Amino acid sequence: MNKKILWIVPHPPADEESDRQLLNILNGCKHADTQFDMAYVGDDKKGPQHLEYHFYEDLVLPAMLNKIKDADKEGYNASIIGCFYDLGLKSARDVSEDMVVIGPAESSMNIACTYGHRFSILVGRKKWIPQMENNVVKYGYKERLASFRKVDLGVLDFHQDEERTAEIITNEARSAVDYDSAEVIILGCTRQFGFYRTLQEELGVPVIDTVIAPFKYAEFLAELKNRFGWKHSEVNGYGSPPREEIFKWDLEKEYF
Amino acid sequence: MNKKILWIVPHPPADEESDRQLLNILNGCKHADTQFDMAYVGDDKKGPQHLEYHFYEDLVLPAMLNKIKDADKEGYNASIIGCFYDLGLKSARDVSEDMVVIGPAESSMNIACTYGHRFSILVGRKKWIPQMENNVVKYGYKERLASFRKVDLGVLDFHQDEERTAEIITNEARSAVDYDSAEVIILGCTRQFGFYRTLQEELGVPVIDTVIAPFKYAEFLAELKNRFGWKHSEVNGYGSPPREEIFKWDLEKEYF
Amino acid sequence: MNKKILWIVPHPPADEESDRQLLNILNGCKHADTQFDMAYVGDDKKGPQHLEYHFYEDLVLPAMLNKIKDADKEGYNASIIGCFYDLGLKSARDVSEDMVVIGPAESSMNIACTYGHRFSILVGRKKWIPQMENNVVKYGYKERLASFRKVDLGVLDFHQDEERTAEIITNEARSAVDYDSAEVIILGCTRQFGFYRTLQEELGVPVIDTVIAPFKYAEFLAELKNRFGWKHSEVNGYGSPPREEIFKWDLEKEYF
Amino acid sequence: MNKKILWIVPHPPADEESDRQLLNILNGCKHADTQFDMAYVGDDKKGPQHLEYHFYEDLVLPAMLNKIKDADKEGYNASIIGCFYDLGLKSARDVSEDMVVIGPAESSMNIACTYGHRFSILVGRKKWIPQMENNVVKYGYKERLASFRKVDLGVLDFHQDEERTAEIITNEARSAVDYDSAEVIILGCTRQFGFYRTLQEELGVPVIDTVIAPFKYAEFLAELKNRFGWKHSEVNGYGSPPREEIFKWDLEKEYF
Amino acid sequence: MNKKILWIVPHPPADEESDRQLLNILNGCKHADTQFDMAYVGDDKKGPQHLEYHFYEDLVLPAMLNKIKDADKEGYNASIIGCFYDLGLKSARDVSEDMVVIGPAESSMNIACTYGHRFSILVGRKKWIPQMENNVVKYGYKERLASFRKVDLGVLDFHQDEERTAEIITNEARSAVDYDSAEVIILGCTRQFGFYRTLQEELGVPVIDTVIAPFKYAEFLAELKNRFGWKHSEVNGYGSPPREEIFKWDLEKEYF
Amino acid sequence: MNKKILWIVPHPPADEESDRQLLNILNGCKHADTQFDMAYVGDDKKGPQHLEYHFYEDLVLPAMLNKIKDADKEGYNASIIGCFYDLGLKSARDVSEDMVVIGPAESSMNIACTYGHRFSILVGRKKWIPQMENNVVKYGYKERLASFRKVDLGVLDFHQDEERTAEIITNEARSAVDYDSAEVIILGCTRQFGFYRTLQEELGVPVIDTVIAPFKYAEFLAELKNRFGWKHSEVNGYGSPPREEIFKWDLEKEYF
Repeated sequence: MNKKILWIVPHPPADEESDRQLLNILNGCKHADTQFDMAYVGDDKKGPQHLEYHFYEDLVLPAMLNKIKDADKEGYNASIIGCFYDLGLKSARDVSEDMVVIGPAESSMNIACTYGHRFSILVGRKKWIPQMENNVVKYGYKERLASFRKVDLGVLDFHQDEERTAEIITNEARSAVDYDSAEVIILGCTRQFGFYRTLQEELGVPVIDTVIAPFKYAEFLAELKNRFGWKHSEVNGYGSPPREEIFKWDLEKEYF
Repeated sequence: MNKKILWIVPHPPADEESDRQLLNILNGCKHADTQFDMAYVGDDKKGPQHLEYHFYEDLVLPAMLNKIKDADKEGYNASIIGCFYDLGLKSARDVSEDMVVIGPAESSMNIACTYGHRFSILVGRKKWIPQMENNVVKYGYKERLASFRKVDLGVLDFHQDEERTAEIITNEARSAVDYDSAEVIILGCTRQFGFYRTLQEELGVPVIDTVIAPFKYAEFLAELKNRFGWKHSEVNGYGSPPREEIFKWDLEKEYF
Repeated sequence: MNKKILWIVPHPPADEESDRQLLNILNGCKHADTQFDMAYVGDDKKGPQHLEYHFYEDLVLPAMLNKIKDADKEGYNASIIGCFYDLGLKSARDVSEDMVVIGPAESSMNIACTYGHRFSILVGRKKWIPQMENNVVKYGYKERLASFRKVDLGVLDFHQDEERTAEIITNEARSAVDYDSAEVIILGCTRQFGFYRTLQEELGVPVIDTVIAPFKYAEFLAELKNRFGWKHSEVNGYGSPPREEIFKWDLEKEYF
Repeated sequence: MNKKILWIVPHPPADEESDRQLLNILNGCKHADTQFDMAYVGDDKKGPQHLEYHFYEDLVLPAMLNKIKDADKEGYNASIIGCFYDLGLKSARDVSEDMVVIGPAESSMNIACTYGHRFSILVGRKKWIPQMENNVVKYGYKERLASFRKVDLGVLDFHQDEERTAEIITNEARSAVDYDSAEVIILGCTRQFGFYRTLQEELGVPVIDTVIAPFKYAEFLAELKNRFGWKHSEVNGYGSPPREEIFKWDLEKEYF
Repeated sequence: MNKKILWIVPHPPADEESDRQLLNILNGCKHADTQFDMAYVGDDKKGPQHLEYHFYEDLVLPAMLNKIKDADKEGYNASIIGCFYDLGLKSARDVSEDMVVIGPAESSMNIACTYGHRFSILVGRKKWIPQMENNVVKYGYKERLASFRKVDLGVLDFHQDEERTAEIITNEARSAVDYDSAEVIILGCTRQFGFYRTLQEELGVPVIDTVIAPFKYAEFLAELKNRFGWKHSEVNGYGSPPREEIFKWDLEKEYF
Repeated sequence: MNKKILWIVPHPPADEESDRQLLNILNGCKHADTQFDMAYVGDDKKGPQHLEYHFYEDLVLPAMLNKIKDADKEGYNASIIGCFYDLGLKSARDVSEDMVVIGPAESSMNIACTYGHRFSILVGRKKWIPQMENNVVKYGYKERLASFRKVDLGVLDFHQDEERTAEIITNEARSAVDYDSAEVIILGCTRQFGFYRTLQEELGVPVIDTVIAPFKYAEFLAELKNRFGWKHSEVNGYGSPPREEIFKWDLEKEYF
């Protein structure tokens, strides 16, 4: 039972070298029976290259949901919204009829909670915190959160000087363990990939890479769906819009 | 010190008779020094005519934020996002530099909490509840919520047979008071306008009309801004995106 | 539709110069159609001149409720209990039949929550905190509270050396923004009036004056009451005592 | 080490037969070395005879605190505020310098929590619930509360027809056990004394009499104070007002 | 990278036919590279055959932890504690040095939360609820729990009359969806295996089998451990006892 | 009505000098009609001498429950589980039919909450905190907890150099009062006995000795049981296992 998985970058290509590394990491840890693709939202260079402002998120959302809808139709079993804000996670599950949708934040916290009582999230900037904290509360992990700690780097800065980034991250992560009683560290941006292993060895606590975690979770949920029929519930808040409204309001292009 | 206020209908015109009534209600209760306009998002008939699905909300969001941005530039002091989901409230405050933005849900709950210990929200359909409940929690009113009660009517149904609507609403509201210990009733859809006064007299508890409440709150906040300089904070999560990114990523049209 | 509003100082006159300033501030920002009065509880010099101890609060409560009852009968539309402890707010709403009653803490937090995700309250002394914190929880704003910060000044000290007060308040407020992630500052004592504007300009975040906020909120709720009939609910815990008990137990003087 | 304990009825004598029974119950279960007295607040017939309205509570508070202060000076080791609202509990502990003060609600819930995971409180009227619920939250027992259930009897009704009262209470208590998962029952009014034992035998769960529980808790805390010096903390919110203010503001009579 | 997984039945063999079915189910859904074994705690017929009483749980705990310790030494990558109480989950993670330990309740809720906003747990008897509810709170899912619903069957009853069991479960599950707003159903006993698929098809919501869910989660975590080194944190509360104490106190047999 | 009370040391004798002191303290403060004994779990030197690891707790649990069962049969009215982890408290209440069981943590927090709004717990090591915090939450005192503070001493270290211990404890307790707003201090290990009085005098806040507090609480609950029949509820989660299962599964020795 093959698994077909799509990683959605929710903005146009911003840093192709980074994306290549990301592809390598994921290809290096996928199952043999997993078919894996990456897609951008917005194919040319028009559009935000990071989502640090709410406005940017909202701007890309319709096109991203359209991509989700396409992926669902094309037979993907699972897709990942490639941003730790988990933007549009609920809506994406809403429009997807058969495919499961994974958010890096939700899946990383899910996993982290099995490794320790409390986790800390290392973010780039202080301004990311309110929205992420709202997600922590929404997912139910408020009591499991030891702290947010910021490293004062923007999304596009993490791989500029990797040695310096590693040092800053290590320092903040150590403080999280020593002073905030964190037992697990979550790297709170998908662009922080590549740093978890050294960090983990140095600190002696699990460090969750938020690219690997949602990808493996996607493989896991894809298998559960294929084997046991488990996927997003369609009662109550969940469920796709009715087709007749889509046609009546001239939304075919946006929806399909 | 005049107040300039904009009511934003976050979708194309759907029911012009209803909108005319809405205009009359608001014009009938505005201050003498209030200048009041109404605007649609999406001027032609293309686009969702209600927002009962997450997908519809996300679809209208970019154009709605654009409208917010325009209103801010055109000198409006306050604008209201005309839907009880308060969609995009945080983002709208993010992009608005000087104008305050009001959500019907937030402002109605704010007011309701001064009238009683617990309020109930009457919704149209069960599927509205999860998102609204998430808002209740986010705004801090979880302990103040007595219950959600549904009347099994869609957004566009409330004014089809007003007598029947009044009867159904009255029954559910009475149950909320008698069995859920509600002391205040909130009509959880802006399309439920026009029913509050009879209901209030019959039940003997305050019934909050969610068109009037945000409109008057907008006048109130507009005055506070004009007189005391109080408006949305721009530290931490709040703040507009930097202009150079808007130009670099070719987003002038979407933003301004 | 005129609005008649009463500011109740819940103790005898303590600092007439301060009260004159307070009157000027409020007269300077009232609506043209607002009639505004100030009243003391305890007319001679007998009685506590501040309410920093629970005992003092309880001591003035019966006379304050009597004043509320009188104001209700005299046709005031709204009254404000002039102390950030919001003492007797629930009881006052209980005995008031037609007039709405406003507390500085409740109304300031209500307003602050529309300007940012988290607010900090600047108090005079550490010992004020437990009771105020209980109010924050009761009103539902626990998750919106960034911190309490104390400036080590008593109620009667704020205007002794205004320059020094301004400096201390500014320092603590800045710490609240920088270290506690406050996005809005609330000045947690009605005697801290007069400082908000400079503070606000210096810090770049909204600073809520707790004299202005409840006064304008009173005007707002007075209008809502006059126009829409919205006032305190009388079901469940809310409601006035029965007249026959008042007479039977010889409480006419205390009540009316 | 003798224990001197005072039961304070926070209103004038209302039902002398009932009070005699109460005295008998407490005298029948006191320790040999316990000296026990009962006192009323308001000696003549003037004043509320029950405290079902907030206004009544606030009215008796100053005189009750005066009684507390007197009892403290007269060498009582512990006093009980004889009403399940625990009115003025915090203030009473504030003004008491050496004597511990016990509230029926707080002490009954303390004890109940050692007997089961969840308790239900049987109240007379629905309107008692909001204030009692606020106490439950304040004391920390929100998650331990199974339910409030009302029996539709006023404070002065419980002993009018004891057989009927017993029957109603038993029915509601049984529903609390069967439908609300209560494991312990608390009789939420001091006037519900005398019913616990039969009820307990019939239901097979502990039923807490809220006259006995606070009385025995008072003996317990009196001994702890006499032996180990444990009494109300005087740091932070707790602590007596300074003597110089009491004299300066002419409050000797009210305070001492 | 093979995965070696152990299912621990935390009591002696009780129903061999059932265990055979369980083995078939798990063997039918394991990965090709998964080696899978089942072990009992207590090899003869001595010992509790279900764990419905706290006493039974505590009785089997030392031997179960011994089994965990053994499995860890024998090179298992993951083990599952085969009971929805998740008994000893924290201790098991404590003594395990390299192997990850999975609890059916924790892993089932983890998965369920990705499929819907709220889940209901179907239990056998009312008396199971308090402990399970404590787990729900401890894991952070209190706000995600729609309800517990009981079917009035003991652990050993589920497979006595499977048709009747299916019918009862279906009824309660439907009520959970209709009245409690559950979007996902969790079968709250490992002995409820075999019923999920029909139930799921009938109700149209995901139904989590609590034998399959933890087993697949174990495979998932085993892979994460083998590939990325992610396993239980050893700082703070987590960590194995020091060897010198084990020897000094003569606990070699119990520990190794 | 005599009271028969048992202090259970949940491990073999570890430090006889300390135990003698403990006995003296308790004998020095017991009632005249209290008969008091101490018992160890594991009579020889085999077994853990402290319970700092979950594994040690689980190891002693069956024998401890057996001791509880014996004590219940031997006519003890109350027993105390002599460890601040309150290990097995729920199970012990489950198997005990007539005797009440007291935990040092639960009873100390119960008492502390009557003396102040917030308490801090002084622990030996950081690793004790997660489990104790879970208890704080379970008992309902999360909002009453000011902080945990650690003194970096193991269970067996407190009485090695009492002067140094006193100094360290005093420093941390003072910080708890000054910086964490603690109003009461709880010494979070039964081996911290003997230090409370000096500490209390120096700090001016109540300091709860966690040997004296549960012992006096046991006397208190024993009297309540003897006089009023109040003891652990047997509905829902509470209740003893059925005798026929005990016999059928050959558990007589473990149970009786």
